[in-house]
Amino acid sequence: MKTRNDRWDLLIQNARVATMDPSVDAPYGLIEAGLVGISGRQIVFVGNENDLPVAMAECATAQLDLGGQFLFPGFIDCHTHLVFAGHRAHEFELRLQGASYEQIARAGGGIVSTVQNTRAVSEAALLAASLPRAEALAAEGVSTLEIKSGYGLDLDSERKMLRVARQIGEALSLTVRTTYLGLHALPPEYRERRAEYVDLAVDHWLPTLHGEGLVDAVDAFMEHIAFTRDETARLFEQAERLGLPVKLHADQLSDGGGAALVATHRGLSADHIEYTSPEAVAAMAAAGTVAVLLPGSFYCLRETRLPPIDQFRTMRVPMAVSTDLNPGTSPLRSSLHAANQACTLFRLTPEEALQGITRHAATALGLAHAKGQIQVGMDADLVAYDISHPAELCYWLGAHQPTRRWTLGQPR
Amino acid sequence: MKTRNDRWDLLIQNARVATMDPSVDAPYGLIEAGLVGISGRQIVFVGNENDLPVAMAECATAQLDLGGQFLFPGFIDCHTHLVFAGHRAHEFELRLQGASYEQIARAGGGIVSTVQNTRAVSEAALLAASLPRAEALAAEGVSTLEIKSGYGLDLDSERKMLRVARQIGEALSLTVRTTYLGLHALPPEYRERRAEYVDLAVDHWLPTLHGEGLVDAVDAFMEHIAFTRDETARLFEQAERLGLPVKLHADQLSDGGGAALVATHRGLSADHIEYTSPEAVAAMAAAGTVAVLLPGSFYCLRETRLPPIDQFRTMRVPMAVSTDLNPGTSPLRSSLHAANQACTLFRLTPEEALQGITRHAATALGLAHAKGQIQVGMDADLVAYDISHPAELCYWLGAHQPTRRWTLGQPR
Ligand SMILES: [Zn+2]
Ligand SMILES: [Zn+2]
Repeated sequence: MKTRNDRWDLLIQNARVATMDPSVDAPYGLIEAGLVGISGRQIVFVGNENDLPVAMAECATAQLDLGGQFLFPGFIDCHTHLVFAGHRAHEFELRLQGASYEQIARAGGGIVSTVQNTRAVSEAALLAASLPRAEALAAEGVSTLEIKSGYGLDLDSERKMLRVARQIGEALSLTVRTTYLGLHALPPEYRERRAEYVDLAVDHWLPTLHGEGLVDAVDAFMEHIAFTRDETARLFEQAERLGLPVKLHADQLSDGGGAALVATHRGLSADHIEYTSPEAVAAMAAAGTVAVLLPGSFYCLRETRLPPIDQFRTMRVPMAVSTDLNPGTSPLRSSLHAANQACTLFRLTPEEALQGITRHAATALGLAHAKGQIQVGMDADLVAYDISHPAELCYWLGAHQPTRRWTLGQPR
Repeated sequence: MKTRNDRWDLLIQNARVATMDPSVDAPYGLIEAGLVGISGRQIVFVGNENDLPVAMAECATAQLDLGGQFLFPGFIDCHTHLVFAGHRAHEFELRLQGASYEQIARAGGGIVSTVQNTRAVSEAALLAASLPRAEALAAEGVSTLEIKSGYGLDLDSERKMLRVARQIGEALSLTVRTTYLGLHALPPEYRERRAEYVDLAVDHWLPTLHGEGLVDAVDAFMEHIAFTRDETARLFEQAERLGLPVKLHADQLSDGGGAALVATHRGLSADHIEYTSPEAVAAMAAAGTVAVLLPGSFYCLRETRLPPIDQFRTMRVPMAVSTDLNPGTSPLRSSLHAANQACTLFRLTPEEALQGITRHAATALGLAHAKGQIQVGMDADLVAYDISHPAELCYWLGAHQPTRRWTLGQPR
């Protein structure tokens, strides 16, 4: 394996390295009695004792004996809505008390309430409200995080959300990828002016926010209760003009052709995708579009229609797994819990679920070159767990505590 | 409300006190702008500013302003199997890889593997393996915990489990109630000598372990794949002779009449109870037997038959909620997660779910006089959360972190 000649900052020894590298011929890409060298923010060596150039062991500024603990690439949560103000616990309670949709709407529930709360707070207050959710993910070992806008639904509030997303990355030393989700819901003030809203969101807000450096990708909620295929296609064409990759909330409640559309645009990912057709799965495979599974909302909504997992396997569509962390349908503050749900509810194997929060999640964010595996040249985002089998990360529910974390080479 | 004249050790002020006391006429027994006085290990005052004798505020040795945070009675997990060695993550993986029951058994899976591992380790090693699981529960605010034997299945190993359970209580300053579950599974060495095993477990081991002060209650797994009604009845008669309360794993996979049997013995609780008949629900109501709901194993096993929740409501059978923390069917290390599952999967309201891990769980352990409510004369087991609605404890999945905890009056 490739090494560099300069002095390493850290040599991690005596680790069971779950590289998640498919070129390593073992489940989880596991290297027993493994070593990982870090220089700066990068991984510069991965192997075991026999692979290590003798001189390098002595050239590392620091050495760390992991005592046989497991080392994983930092986890990646590739689909979250974690920037918002307020919560919807009262709505959750009303629903369980038997309230109707109308009663909840009258009590101020639904996405509109989150939009109102998010618009109403200052940027600092929005950061303060959102930061603990990102911290909860990071505490389990997440080092890369996607965060969507979509509760602002006006230019200033969408900007505020995206700025807060960037600030979360800086505050917690996480890699944050922002996604513009202006076509999330039609805000109440545009109920009678739908076309006007889409024009603004697509033609004005997106270019403006992109010009401010706030947008890494573009997403929409394409569903009969949200935005149409034509509206989504217009958004995607705008994204293409701006050079931005696209992804989509697709085929969650019905087969609206969303996954097929995103594949047409060679999109990063189609997300939810419970109702996606075999033809669309084939199109995703051809386009390299990742299937992002969101079992948290499946669980919370007590859905019964499973995504076409076997078709994704057969067609070799990479499956990512994410929390969908949001206040309405998935108040889920744990990527490892999403991994358990992917196993328990969607019947992924633990290795598939862990690929879903590492390697394939990296691909879903366009970061396959730098994240999601323990490989020379990739970012030194690492997390250590004192466990005896990698499947423990998916098996236990709750109370996952890594022993050590690094992001971009630095201990956290 | 009753006060005492001696000096209080602590006066907690400015708390939103979710007393869970049914005599307080508000959801969650909530007292706004509440105060709680603690003296020694007991609660000596509960009320709001208007109720407080003026002199007492100045007489408290220490005062604490909770800044409007919520205060709950310490949570109670009334059904766990958390003392065991090893885990079954590999079996979890094999099952998801499509292995048959026989293949898993041949690979050393199933309850037998946990029995072998638990028998093989020393008492100190068993404590070291189990303590982090109890710590995980305590970290969320659990202050009282039931722990069953049942992976030893011989006298020495059952004793070892129960001793470890007691040690967990001491090490973490938790109230631990031990339960003898000798009739959990027939160990392999007795496969051809079933009657002999039951004789030993009922007539010899139970009295011996009780004589050593290790047994607070008696339980069995009555199911067609485990022990019969007659065998369970023999155990319960022995328990009665020894003055020990009984409870039962009942009607989980079929209606075996388990809940009815435990009601006949005026048992503390019937647990699982997915298949319990209306007649048995009525018998439980008459006997004061608590329905212990275990949604974690329902989730992990992807069961579809719901317990008769509406009948429990109609017949006023108290419903407790618990983790069933065990390595095979519920590796669930969070009581609040069980509360979420009770809401999401069993459609309990958040208030019912929180009653299920406080007041009704106390009744299920025979501790209704001392635990599960914030009430004068009860133990000062308290947990504070910085939230804005009590339903948040059931609504969020993962990352529940109390700001303060007390058990028996002491901060933890
Ligand atoms: Zn989403
Ligand atoms: Zn059990």
